[in-house]
Amino acid sequence: MIVVLGAAGYIGRAFVSELKARGLEHRAVSRVECDYARFGELTAFLRKTGARFLVNTAGFTGKPNVDACETARDATLLGNVVLPQTIACACEAVDIPWFHVSSGCIYNGAWLNDSDGRRIVEDLSAPEAREALAARPGDVQGFVEDDEPNFSFDCPPCSFYSGSKALAEKVLAGVGNVYVGRLRIPFDEFDGPRNYLSKLLRYPKVYDNVNSLSHRGDFVQAALGLLLNRAPFGVYNMTNPGFVSTREVVERIRARLAPERQFEFWENDEAFYREAAKAPRSNCILDTAKLQAAGVAMRPFDVALDAALDNWQWEEGRP
Amino acid sequence: MIVVLGAAGYIGRAFVSELKARGLEHRAVSRVECDYARFGELTAFLRKTGARFLVNTAGFTGKPNVDACETARDATLLGNVVLPQTIACACEAVDIPWFHVSSGCIYNGAWLNDSDGRRIVEDLSAPEAREALAARPGDVQGFVEDDEPNFSFDCPPCSFYSGSKALAEKVLAGVGNVYVGRLRIPFDEFDGPRNYLSKLLRYPKVYDNVNSLSHRGDFVQAALGLLLNRAPFGVYNMTNPGFVSTREVVERIRARLAPERQFEFWENDEAFYREAAKAPRSNCILDTAKLQAAGVAMRPFDVALDAALDNWQWEEGRP
Repeated sequence: MIVVLGAAGYIGRAFVSELKARGLEHRAVSRVECDYARFGELTAFLRKTGARFLVNTAGFTGKPNVDACETARDATLLGNVVLPQTIACACEAVDIPWFHVSSGCIYNGAWLNDSDGRRIVEDLSAPEAREALAARPGDVQGFVEDDEPNFSFDCPPCSFYSGSKALAEKVLAGVGNVYVGRLRIPFDEFDGPRNYLSKLLRYPKVYDNVNSLSHRGDFVQAALGLLLNRAPFGVYNMTNPGFVSTREVVERIRARLAPERQFEFWENDEAFYREAAKAPRSNCILDTAKLQAAGVAMRPFDVALDAALDNWQWEEGRP
Repeated sequence: MIVVLGAAGYIGRAFVSELKARGLEHRAVSRVECDYARFGELTAFLRKTGARFLVNTAGFTGKPNVDACETARDATLLGNVVLPQTIACACEAVDIPWFHVSSGCIYNGAWLNDSDGRRIVEDLSAPEAREALAARPGDVQGFVEDDEPNFSFDCPPCSFYSGSKALAEKVLAGVGNVYVGRLRIPFDEFDGPRNYLSKLLRYPKVYDNVNSLSHRGDFVQAALGLLLNRAPFGVYNMTNPGFVSTREVVERIRARLAPERQFEFWENDEAFYREAAKAPRSNCILDTAKLQAAGVAMRPFDVALDAALDNWQWEEGRP
């Protein structure tokens, strides 16, 4: 029996769908049914239900976006740092393995092999950086799991959200029975407010940068693969292999979904931060070799994006 | 058997002394002996030693002062928020009561009864506020335990340290077996770098304000009183009843310990924050009726201060 925390959220719903589709016994737990922020309630619930695995998709991401975490600091830390530690204690107490949804946003940039060595390019929203990466894709390397976060409280500036997610990884480091899966900018074929493709379709202006991205269904399948195959515990970058610029994604969206739409881009970072964003945003490329080595690879990014666009399902309120 | 975490620190050492003096069986635990930030290690240790109580004096206060917490955010949150939650889980798992050292610095100001009602005066470092309080001591009320913190992440501005301490109280709210004791500006008769009186003796310039203060030994005695008497669990303000301005404390220090010393004061808040401090400082008065009702009152502030000065023991390196 697999217990899913945060089952009403964007990622939680996808876990529940997949578990249903596979016919795997599971419980989607709400805070009303079990206040899982309380150690005693959570351990009692896990014992009572005979849980064999737990998936934590609960957390505080901020509404309408990550800027809300800059002011809602208590909620951010309670949801993203204290809750994972409570779950770690409970899962250790009842001795079951679990999966925690972390985030790639604890990194900013990518490694680039230059003539004079390997260096981190941090400004993936700058045109020169995008051009350098596009011109020399073979010299680009994503961050690996053991790289120190460079967009965290200990390595400022960072957003409060990223700080909390990086701190949670510190809290879970050395916990022996947890998979920490780093999600990054989720998208899939289901139009909706948390889907990156839907956001791009509806933003008045688009922020151009380069990132690795996670197809939501691929992420969930890989996560369950880790859990059910009993892969080695630890941290996994869980993006679709590859990276892409926003401009390329927009081009493909336009070609397939919105041929008439004119997309506007922010002229530069200054304009974006002045008018649309408060907290600094991370843009990053992740290396996914570890996940592939665990035998639960996600599809290459191109394949996953094309499939999402081919199978696109508009929500009501299509723009 | 009473387990003391953080036993090498300023407050932890005082607990160990008092437990020794009373002949009570105890274990002063270091992180080397037991990494108590790990749930599994802590619960195993508590079971092995047959602990009946735990006292948590561990935490991150910043060195040389609270300004260090503004940059060492991970350490601040790990020590002051995540650790208390880990201890809460462990003490619930082994079913023992415990005591947590919290802080009064989650409040700023005091209640003042005015002709037009009750209001919070927040600027206890302003001369007018100090004069108002001094002129009408009968109209001054300290914060009670149930007052919402007003110097916290949810009520900015605050220092990162205060934010972390207020958040820990949220984490521990509703935990059924914990005493949360709010310490505030500890002092006693033992000259040393963490003693408020010693600091005043050595600061090049003194910051004038009004506060409630905690005699370290009184605090420890009251904490053990709560634990051993099985007082009702919950939050307790644990300062010596009363309040005092820095200027008054300095006057008494001068009269008793340093008649030749000329004390200089910061002209105003602007100068203090420009030259000596980074994070905003809280100054506050706490109400101690709840502690008194629990039968473990601390001495009135005047009595405790006079006793400390009467029994003063210079450290080497006397100024």
